[in-house]
Amino acid sequence: MVFLVEMDVNIPESWSEEKIADYVTREKECSQGWQKSGKWVYLWRVAGQYSNVSVLEVESPDELHKIISSLPLFPYMTINVKSLCKHPNALREAMI
Amino acid sequence: MVFLVEMDVNIPESWSEEKIADYVTREKECSQGWQKSGKWVYLWRVAGQYSNVSVLEVESPDELHKIISSLPLFPYMTINVKSLCKHPNALREAMI
Amino acid sequence: MVFLVEMDVNIPESWSEEKIADYVTREKECSQGWQKSGKWVYLWRVAGQYSNVSVLEVESPDELHKIISSLPLFPYMTINVKSLCKHPNALREAMI
Amino acid sequence: MVFLVEMDVNIPESWSEEKIADYVTREKECSQGWQKSGKWVYLWRVAGQYSNVSVLEVESPDELHKIISSLPLFPYMTINVKSLCKHPNALREAMI
Amino acid sequence: MVFLVEMDVNIPESWSEEKIADYVTREKECSQGWQKSGKWVYLWRVAGQYSNVSVLEVESPDELHKIISSLPLFPYMTINVKSLCKHPNALREAMI
Amino acid sequence: MVFLVEMDVNIPESWSEEKIADYVTREKECSQGWQKSGKWVYLWRVAGQYSNVSVLEVESPDELHKIISSLPLFPYMTINVKSLCKHPNALREAMI
Amino acid sequence: MVFLVEMDVNIPESWSEEKIADYVTREKECSQGWQKSGKWVYLWRVAGQYSNVSVLEVESPDELHKIISSLPLFPYMTINVKSLCKHPNALREAMI
Amino acid sequence: MVFLVEMDVNIPESWSEEKIADYVTREKECSQGWQKSGKWVYLWRVAGQYSNVSVLEVESPDELHKIISSLPLFPYMTINVKSLCKHPNALREAMI
Amino acid sequence: MVFLVEMDVNIPESWSEEKIADYVTREKECSQGWQKSGKWVYLWRVAGQYSNVSVLEVESPDELHKIISSLPLFPYMTINVKSLCKHPNALREAMI
Amino acid sequence: MVFLVEMDVNIPESWSEEKIADYVTREKECSQGWQKSGKWVYLWRVAGQYSNVSVLEVESPDELHKIISSLPLFPYMTINVKSLCKHPNALREAMI
Repeated sequence: MVFLVEMDVNIPESWSEEKIADYVTREKECSQGWQKSGKWVYLWRVAGQYSNVSVLEVESPDELHKIISSLPLFPYMTINVKSLCKHPNALREAMI
Repeated sequence: MVFLVEMDVNIPESWSEEKIADYVTREKECSQGWQKSGKWVYLWRVAGQYSNVSVLEVESPDELHKIISSLPLFPYMTINVKSLCKHPNALREAMI
Repeated sequence: MVFLVEMDVNIPESWSEEKIADYVTREKECSQGWQKSGKWVYLWRVAGQYSNVSVLEVESPDELHKIISSLPLFPYMTINVKSLCKHPNALREAMI
Repeated sequence: MVFLVEMDVNIPESWSEEKIADYVTREKECSQGWQKSGKWVYLWRVAGQYSNVSVLEVESPDELHKIISSLPLFPYMTINVKSLCKHPNALREAMI
Repeated sequence: MVFLVEMDVNIPESWSEEKIADYVTREKECSQGWQKSGKWVYLWRVAGQYSNVSVLEVESPDELHKIISSLPLFPYMTINVKSLCKHPNALREAMI
Repeated sequence: MVFLVEMDVNIPESWSEEKIADYVTREKECSQGWQKSGKWVYLWRVAGQYSNVSVLEVESPDELHKIISSLPLFPYMTINVKSLCKHPNALREAMI
Repeated sequence: MVFLVEMDVNIPESWSEEKIADYVTREKECSQGWQKSGKWVYLWRVAGQYSNVSVLEVESPDELHKIISSLPLFPYMTINVKSLCKHPNALREAMI
Repeated sequence: MVFLVEMDVNIPESWSEEKIADYVTREKECSQGWQKSGKWVYLWRVAGQYSNVSVLEVESPDELHKIISSLPLFPYMTINVKSLCKHPNALREAMI
Repeated sequence: MVFLVEMDVNIPESWSEEKIADYVTREKECSQGWQKSGKWVYLWRVAGQYSNVSVLEVESPDELHKIISSLPLFPYMTINVKSLCKHPNALREAMI
Repeated sequence: MVFLVEMDVNIPESWSEEKIADYVTREKECSQGWQKSGKWVYLWRVAGQYSNVSVLEVESPDELHKIISSLPLFPYMTINVKSLCKHPNALREAMI
């Protein structure tokens, strides 16, 4: 099943530049691991904002939560999730 | 360039069932025409809501507006548009 | 999978009392049919408001949408959907 | 009587990992104690978010407050409470 | 148990002055009946707005809903309900 | 004149447990002093939330401000104030 | 006592031009009567919007409500009221 | 002085296509008259939405209001106005 | 020209009592200097809240910004500004 | 293509005056570099607020993001972006 996930990142102001760099590196590794698995299908930046839009295709809501909550910055993001389904006007057979 | 477009449909309460059916038919034709052109890449339903999430790949913001405003229900929708760009952590080379 | 669905009903002001009564009767039949199927597990009223809170256990987001959009009042409700999953602190094995 | 309780957790950014681990452990013990008592009937995670949805069946609003405010993370959560009652279309005799 | 109920009235624009007068009369009778019963303890106007603040002391959330939904203008109000309980700093023994 | 005051408490995360306990004690003393004066008529807890609902009967808006701003936690609360007046449907002669 | 009142006007779309003109004329007469009484001290337009900002000096919240609710367009406005009091940094002795 | 004005158009659902066409024509004439005067400097469409963003350079807030309120669709728009001034980092001497 | 300015003060939680007292003293001096100049016409407290409502009469938006941004607490306030103009129903010739 | 960008600055409360001054200086240099390039066309201050309104003309959404995210204060701003296109009523041939 397919989810649209929007994430706004709020880096704590007290973090040192080293700590930020460490988190950013681990966030990249974690996110790219899930992209390689094929479950994290799209990862886009919202132009001009510190926000992301993602599309994930997973087995279950539990798997979606496992992926998103594995991100090192998970506790520092405002996250909005939409469960998607087939639109009657969509020509494409598959969801992705 | 790629846009994420979210549309909430608000059918006027005074419309007859015939008028609604007519609009729904024309909306489908219009939307499928743009899907066939390859510009309207994804059209999903938000599960349980009278809302859509779409991803369009267009030449310009003017083209995006031409497509969305050609929908018969355009004046009766609340529409939210996000301009997307490449995310530094994205593995995929292309946006779509 | 389990969804929490919150619905606020907005009856169009132009409807006659007969039309309202007809919709309310059909809404009840429709909702009770889904309750009998076992998919619509809980249906509660929010005390003092014209709003409902429901818990549904379905096969897929598409099935959730089929159920909710089959309600006669679907076009006249503001609907909020949350996809739920297992909480690590939950003692109960099953979701429901 | 039955309440729907939604909690968003906001861990203070200044907390050490030890402090967080300590709170998380005590939160689990506290929540599971109330689940064993039968008063905290459902505890779900919102998929992809650091939020919970719970259903509690209690003797009074005071008892609800005693339970929720006993959680160690109570001061660090945004909490929304809805008092529920029987829906005229509900087939189920009992609320739970 | 005690509830705080805030109601904003939205009279449909299509109603004739007769219809409005009829509803207002019946609303008054209905509300005063519940006040006489002792369950609707306070009914205040918010100064300068078409809104009310009420305090009700009832047996159950179901009784609260029975009272509020018996108001003729119930379908035309935006209603907000808060379930109240004893505050540890309150000197007064009783809630009302 | 009568005011409805809603307060959400936001304890600063950096405060030690001693500092919190000190503030809570002084808050109680301050609030109970005003309750004894008869001006702070009701003080309720919103069930399940770190929020209060109060009803005060005072001589003037200046007196209301003197009372509320004397609370030690005043700078750490989000406060909403509604000025109340007599409702035409109210049976009770007095406001309180 | 002094109140700040903000009003957004929402003329019903079904009104004829004659009906609108009639309401606008009566609104002007009513508002100017209160201005002459000295109680409605300031009446400003928000530049570029169909909204007003007013300052009233009245005897009581009941008097404020009597004035505002006497406006013919009262049921068709979204109204926000703030009760004002003396600021410790204000040099001016009087409120107005 | 310079104002940023954002307008969302809400055409009443009861209007006939002739009435809409008449308003749209007059709206265009009115807006182009002000553009020719040099006071309405920029008029942009928000891509994909029935909304405009405008920049006006006027003599006074009263003149801004005269211009915006002369639009035939003025009563049917949600309008947001921001008063702009020189930014200390701006290189450009003039505002426009 | 006349502006309505609403300010909510958010004192940083980490400030010592000395630092707060110093800022409050300087804020008073600054605000009273502008009041003496005649440009800051009204300064009111919102009863029961840590918020102010002010009316300023200035030469230009730039002057308004110079005044407001000279306040020591400027970076720690949420500020809302409305540009006002003459209302057609206002009897008073002058804005102030 | 043209974007309207609104930025609210939130300086972290823990920053020393030196650190703030350093950021402000670098922010100015960065923003003026982009203004000299011709891509950052307008930079205005919202009168009385710590907010900016900008108009940028760029090659792509990616270029917009490169510019905005190069600002030293980028992680400490709430940013809102609107993609603009030609309005059918605009007389001006070019967007800028």
